[in-house]
Formats: sequence, structure tokens, C-alpha cells
Amino acid sequence: MDTAVTITQLAKMLQNLDRWLDTARGFAERKKFDPDVLVQARLAPDQYALGRQVQSACDAAKYAAAYLAGQTAPSHPDTEKTLDELRARIATCVRYLQSVPASAYAGAEDRRVAPPWLQGKWFRGADYLVQLAIPNFYFHVTSAYAILRHNGVELGKMDYIGSMPVHDA
Amino acid sequence: MDTAVTITQLAKMLQNLDRWLDTARGFAERKKFDPDVLVQARLAPDQYALGRQVQSACDAAKYAAAYLAGQTAPSHPDTEKTLDELRARIATCVRYLQSVPASAYAGAEDRRVAPPWLQGKWFRGADYLVQLAIPNFYFHVTSAYAILRHNGVELGKMDYIGSMPVHDA
Repeated sequence: MDTAVTITQLAKMLQNLDRWLDTARGFAERKKFDPDVLVQARLAPDQYALGRQVQSACDAAKYAAAYLAGQTAPSHPDTEKTLDELRARIATCVRYLQSVPASAYAGAEDRRVAPPWLQGKWFRGADYLVQLAIPNFYFHVTSAYAILRHNGVELGKMDYIGSMPVHDA
Repeated sequence: MDTAVTITQLAKMLQNLDRWLDTARGFAERKKFDPDVLVQARLAPDQYALGRQVQSACDAAKYAAAYLAGQTAPSHPDTEKTLDELRARIATCVRYLQSVPASAYAGAEDRRVAPPWLQGKWFRGADYLVQLAIPNFYFHVTSAYAILRHNGVELGKMDYIGSMPVHDA
């Protein structure tokens, strides 16, 4: 599991997510509703709304980078109330991900990852990345996408995937 | 990127998905509705219903294993109409994933992956796994989860994550 490659992919997905939010704003403008209504949209009453899905996707990526690089994660308080503020949060997170050099992930597979919520227990770095960080990140990114689609925002699978690393025959 | 470890994780997520479908059946029985109604549930009229999300998650995992191991993927026709049939589809897919030995993924990173829909173009194996197969897989698994949650099925984040590879302090 190449950690640096994975973190680069999470940054790419966050940049895709940023474009979905821009599409959502255009949709709201055409439909003449306040785009920030979408920040509170959710699929079930006891599930996170869009805003918290975006914050959680950012945090999943941020903590993956920080834990696996042996850094202290920067603090990004969950204060966003508008689509523009969520986009700024994404940009802040992506800048942090890009600030961690690939070399910082040397030995990440065998690093002990001990998030506070584990109360002293720990994951092996490779297990944490594959079984926790990646599924959790995609959970929140896809939930954000699903909330937007459920509300009529015109997105498709290629908006989700983003640029394709394709080679000519 | 350890391909075998990733495929093992996709199999784990499919087994989690199988449990959500079992929870969904219990929910339908308590609410006294036909559980197979859920197979057609969807979040937007132009998005896949639950059944096709499950089929697509299975296929994303199946093709990842087959392409990266240099095998021809087994054919699993999309004929499922009931939750039980979807669970059987998952079991068939998981058995296939488990049938591919880790050694078959030797050199997978640099393998040329040329799905028919690329019409002759190709991905480098590592790019395909990280940028296509994994995000696409989690897209369909999380969409299935979101459809169930939207319909009231009682699931939480730990049902999504499944077993935790945690070590004692």
C-alpha cells in the first residue's frame, strides 16, 4: 500500500467534491433557491447533513496523512455554514495534504496509529489506511454526492471519478 | 499499493454489505412490508436502485481482482430481483475474490489494464486500482448503504466499517 499515492488520490477526490459543490451552486441559482440550504440537506434524520459530510471527508483525509506521517494534524474547526465556506475548508485540507512530502510516509505501514477515540489501543498503519481511513473517506465523499443527487443536482459518475489516468493504445 | 490486501478489504466490505441486507430484511419483517421492495429503492430517479448498486459493487471488486491478476473475470449475469438473490450474488463474488491467490497479483502495479469500455486505451495497474477500482467500489457500497438508511433501515457507521483490526495497548 503506497501511502503517498493514496493521499494524493484523496486530495484528487476532495478536488472533485469541490467541483460538485460548484455545480450545486449553479443548480441553486438556476432554480432560484438559496444554495446554502443544501448545506443542511440530509438523506435520513439521524445521518450527517451535507456540511458535516464534507467536514468529515476532509478530516478523514487530514488524519490519514497526519497519523501516517507521524505529524500532529492541524486544527480545522467545524464552523462552515455555507457552500463557499465548505469549499474553503476543502482547499485548506488539500493544501495540508500537499504539504506532506512523500518521504514523510516512510515506514507508515508499520507505524502505530492510536487515534484518541481508541483510548490507548492502536492500529498498524497499513490496517488503519486500508480498513479505516480509505473506507471512511469514501463513505463521506459518496454520501455528499448522494445528498446532492437526491436534491436534483446534475452530477454523473465521471464527475465522481474525475480525471482518468488513461494511456493511448 | 498491496493489491492482495486491497482485494481482501473489498471482500470484507462485501461481507459487511451482506449483513446490511440481512438487517434490511429484518426491518421489513418488523414493518410488515415486502423486503424485496427495497431492491428497487433509489435516491434519485436517474440513479441506480439498490439492486444494481449491489451488482455494481460486486463487479467493481470482481474486475479489480481479475484485471490485476491477469485473469478473465467469471460471468455473473445481473438477474437478481430479491434481497436473497443479491446476497447469493455477493457470496459468489466473495468466493471468486478468495479464489485468487495473493501470488497472482505479482507485478500488478505495472500491468496494463484495458477494460473493453476504454476501447483500446489502458491504465497502469496501480493507477487503475487507486483511481478507478477503489473509488468506484466504495461509491456503490456507500450508495447501497445510503439507500437503506434513507428507507429507515437501522444501520450505523460501525456496520459500515465492520470488524476493527485493533491491537491492545
